Amino acid sequence: MNKLVGNAVVGQSGGPTSAINATLAGVIKGAAEMNQAGVINKIYGMRNGIEGLLSEMLVDLSPRMNDEGWLRSLAATPAAALGSCRRKLKSHTEDKETYEKLIEIFKKYDIRYFFYIGGNDSMDTVLKLSEYAKANSYELKVVGIPKTIDNDLKATDHTPGFGSAAKFVATTVKEILRDINVYTVKAVTIVEIMGRDAGWLTTASALPLLSGGVGPDLIYLPERVFDAEKFISDVKAALDRHPAVLVCASEGIRFADGEYVGSGSQSGAVDVFGHKYLSGTGKVLETMVKEQIGCKVRSLELSLPQRCAAHIASLADIEESLSVGAAGVRFAADGHTGVMTVMERDAGEEYSIKYGVMDIKDIANEIKTVPDEYINSDANGVTDLCLDYLKPLIMGEISPEYESGMPKHITI
Amino acid sequence: MNKLVGNAVVGQSGGPTSAINATLAGVIKGAAEMNQAGVINKIYGMRNGIEGLLSEMLVDLSPRMNDEGWLRSLAATPAAALGSCRRKLKSHTEDKETYEKLIEIFKKYDIRYFFYIGGNDSMDTVLKLSEYAKANSYELKVVGIPKTIDNDLKATDHTPGFGSAAKFVATTVKEILRDINVYTVKAVTIVEIMGRDAGWLTTASALPLLSGGVGPDLIYLPERVFDAEKFISDVKAALDRHPAVLVCASEGIRFADGEYVGSGSQSGAVDVFGHKYLSGTGKVLETMVKEQIGCKVRSLELSLPQRCAAHIASLADIEESLSVGAAGVRFAADGHTGVMTVMERDAGEEYSIKYGVMDIKDIANEIKTVPDEYINSDANGVTDLCLDYLKPLIMGEISPEYESGMPKHITI
Repeated sequence: MNKLVGNAVVGQSGGPTSAINATLAGVIKGAAEMNQAGVINKIYGMRNGIEGLLSEMLVDLSPRMNDEGWLRSLAATPAAALGSCRRKLKSHTEDKETYEKLIEIFKKYDIRYFFYIGGNDSMDTVLKLSEYAKANSYELKVVGIPKTIDNDLKATDHTPGFGSAAKFVATTVKEILRDINVYTVKAVTIVEIMGRDAGWLTTASALPLLSGGVGPDLIYLPERVFDAEKFISDVKAALDRHPAVLVCASEGIRFADGEYVGSGSQSGAVDVFGHKYLSGTGKVLETMVKEQIGCKVRSLELSLPQRCAAHIASLADIEESLSVGAAGVRFAADGHTGVMTVMERDAGEEYSIKYGVMDIKDIANEIKTVPDEYINSDANGVTDLCLDYLKPLIMGEISPEYESGMPKHITI
Repeated sequence: MNKLVGNAVVGQSGGPTSAINATLAGVIKGAAEMNQAGVINKIYGMRNGIEGLLSEMLVDLSPRMNDEGWLRSLAATPAAALGSCRRKLKSHTEDKETYEKLIEIFKKYDIRYFFYIGGNDSMDTVLKLSEYAKANSYELKVVGIPKTIDNDLKATDHTPGFGSAAKFVATTVKEILRDINVYTVKAVTIVEIMGRDAGWLTTASALPLLSGGVGPDLIYLPERVFDAEKFISDVKAALDRHPAVLVCASEGIRFADGEYVGSGSQSGAVDVFGHKYLSGTGKVLETMVKEQIGCKVRSLELSLPQRCAAHIASLADIEESLSVGAAGVRFAADGHTGVMTVMERDAGEEYSIKYGVMDIKDIANEIKTVPDEYINSDANGVTDLCLDYLKPLIMGEISPEYESGMPKHITI
């Protein structure tokens, strides 16, 4: 098969993760491979995703193609090194001009390969762009490479970036368990964990059970309706067992009427995609405990470090993020377009991953939630099956280079 | 000089730190040394500080005296492994009974050495106990060993535990700087950092300047009066320079009238020592920016991980915490009592520390704040002199043992 010869462009979009630059490094490595094979000439990075591309803010990454040290440092740097954006392309019937502009830029830079690292919203961009190019006879291979700490993309066993966020959550919850257990007075600690629609990252709070045998007393996920009365009785029962009670709750838990538990403290603000802006789920639970139980209580949000604490990244995640990036380039060179690279877990005892592709139209804008068999029957914890699923994703540590006592980061 | 021969007891008190168990390991190592010398027979640990001692909740740590592997793991475990307490001894004129009980227990267990690892309030206990023992002719050597992430104890160059907390703050702020800089929209991020009366830990947020050259735009410490109007004009000026503005503020900043900025969101609650319970300084600043500037703004508290994120502990801190514990035992064996071990920084170019002792009565209940020469003239940042002071304290990384992808902790 004759391969399409030309240049490539890569962009990063959506929220930061600790592994998104490992995927970028993987795409650059994949491009280096295809450069050797005479398929890809140059690889450009677009600054701030599609937004930067539209204003031709391109950086030639080709000189770094074989710079192993730089690529290793890049892989250990958190949060999109190329910059990100939250822009979602409108359909070409609504905004033909933008698509025409893009094709014009592709022609100008002889771009034949388009790699977009992102989450749900970014895959939507991949889908629209690939369809437009096809319909307008511009030969372009458009491949989406998943990235999200939320682990909520369909068709892939898990998402690059999730393992590192899960390792941060597991480690931090384990350390908090040590912290709250030094005193003997009754006290409830509530940890709020990211995840708007799916509780994946919150399930990771149960992982300390595998190292030391102690975990949170109660875990609440958005996959189950949140019942305030049941919550108070759960907490009371836990306080009867021991003084220091730990509750881990997803920011996205909702009451039976569908309202977010945390929405009370925010006045319905929405982000640029129209998603409700959440904050304060932990605070609301704290207030419930204070008012209805009256013991010492505190809440904390794990907040931004969940998506950027690269110093505690999962080695498994970083390596897979590299591989999934390189695999994306190979799939594109093989002629795939309008697809997302996915990871498939082998059925065997030993954990291993195969890389494949899925049609974006089967994936985009859909949410993968935590399945029933991973949630306990009381709707306040996770099952062993869930821990079996999570454990391999957080294994191994990276050894970032330190500079003046802090992890070294790469700037592009 | 004839050394006092008998058993020793060690306790931990006050809030957790990542290094408090390194100091415990140091005391056990020091006891092993003195055991060899025929001075200390057994070393007991008291559970939950003075509170556990009063109910004779003692654990014999002697079998671990020479267990290097166990001591190394203990040193990497965050938050008092013996448990802690917040109990402050009353004066013996107010509560003679407690003191008599303590002497009785010391006699029963032949305890001649008393080591107490803690902060300001714990040093008060050391002072009272040493004075009572002296006045009542019970020969007891009472040595306090400092521990606090706040770095606010007098007479010591810095406190064990501070370096690790500072390394966590520096690393996390550096990662947050990466995170917030991926977008191009104007946005203010406010990070609230622990420190009720002194801004030491907040100064550590400036350390990213030493690795990558980027730091917070604005830093507010409790050592300077907080002026809301000045704050808003500072933030506006920063937004004029670049879109992503980072503000780091101590939880303890106060208005000109002495009121805590964060006190508005708490109804004057106090902790068991009568300290005002603070929370919400960041939220208050967030609201100010939202109302008076109107751009995107978010706040986060670094919260509990500041005192227990041992996985990112400073090697310098852990090693010094071990050494200061062992030094405390040597000083006690040399006859010192009613003292706290202190660290003195050598004047030379190369960073190095000497260990010494100070009379507790010159130290207890006093606060060491950030000196004027460490704070910029605009009262919204720190000086190079401050960075020079901080840098050696966060140098080096520990290599904790990992188990199922998480740092392994020791349980006593």
